[in-house]
Amino acid sequence: MMKMKFENMVKSEGVVRVLTVLILGLGACLVGSNSQTKVILIRKTATFKDLEALYISLYIYCIGAAYNLLRVCNISCFHGNFKGPNLPLAWAALFFDQIMVYLTYGVTTAATQASIIAITGQNNFQWMKLCNKFTRFCIQMGGAMVCGYLACFLMILITSFSAFNLFSHYSPKQFLLLKPIISSS
Amino acid sequence: MMKMKFENMVKSEGVVRVLTVLILGLGACLVGSNSQTKVILIRKTATFKDLEALYISLYIYCIGAAYNLLRVCNISCFHGNFKGPNLPLAWAALFFDQIMVYLTYGVTTAATQASIIAITGQNNFQWMKLCNKFTRFCIQMGGAMVCGYLACFLMILITSFSAFNLFSHYSPKQFLLLKPIISSS
Repeated sequence: MMKMKFENMVKSEGVVRVLTVLILGLGACLVGSNSQTKVILIRKTATFKDLEALYISLYIYCIGAAYNLLRVCNISCFHGNFKGPNLPLAWAALFFDQIMVYLTYGVTTAATQASIIAITGQNNFQWMKLCNKFTRFCIQMGGAMVCGYLACFLMILITSFSAFNLFSHYSPKQFLLLKPIISSS
Repeated sequence: MMKMKFENMVKSEGVVRVLTVLILGLGACLVGSNSQTKVILIRKTATFKDLEALYISLYIYCIGAAYNLLRVCNISCFHGNFKGPNLPLAWAALFFDQIMVYLTYGVTTAATQASIIAITGQNNFQWMKLCNKFTRFCIQMGGAMVCGYLACFLMILITSFSAFNLFSHYSPKQFLLLKPIISSS
């Protein structure tokens, strides 16, 4: 079975969080700079502001990156001396981690759905295809989605670590009963 | 602090799972029966098959309901005598729980995004509004989305319970090291 010291876990969590920050930053840049102008009878511009999902995802990616950056800075405060009074903080950390995962995943999935409609169109609803005209716009959108899902995957990893760290302090016999200190070996 | 016996936790998990089954079943019915015909110059029908997100969500809701039903039936097998050899099963259970949560949440969010486009339309992309014409179709779609998110919420609750049950069996000092049996009080 894999054996990993607690300090190494904290270090690897830091590395994963930094990666998440970089990827979310890249995703935000890709979304925020996404705009393409074409002349189709009239001059037309497609920007990320045309789709609400993209617009919101820009903000969520930025918030996610900022949150993870904050957690990297405070990682010693949250995890350094874990016993006793820091348990409420660990609960809060797990809670906000989960919220960020679901926000990022949700907004990325919504943007992907909008992109799929842009690629395939919907004849019956008279929603026309976009990606045959605004090709670069769509490719850049795809890149941002890949970043979003990658960041989600990393954040799910981190959340699992956090949950493990927190829940392993409790007794398995009764709900939310702390283990006696002597037995936490 | 809330004190809850292990048996009560198992019971309440069963109740939440049954609720999830019912809600996902209702959602699947709402999506699957969603179809409306209108005469707008020509006779036109909007069904859930027009939007891939809705089509996929029908299947995911059914799979989710079936999975949770299975887990309700096997709840004694998975949780009854938890020590020792059943830990791999508990890991598998947590893993599949998580996958079902993310699948349900993802497909519901994608369908919601498609619905939002159907409600607001997108002038610049020439995606026309639907919901001013197919009103009942859109309301039924909304009902299904509410069911989807409710089921997600319940499944996140269950997953937290499962994670707590599993991780509280491990030592907080070293990663994936089981506690000595004597200390699991």
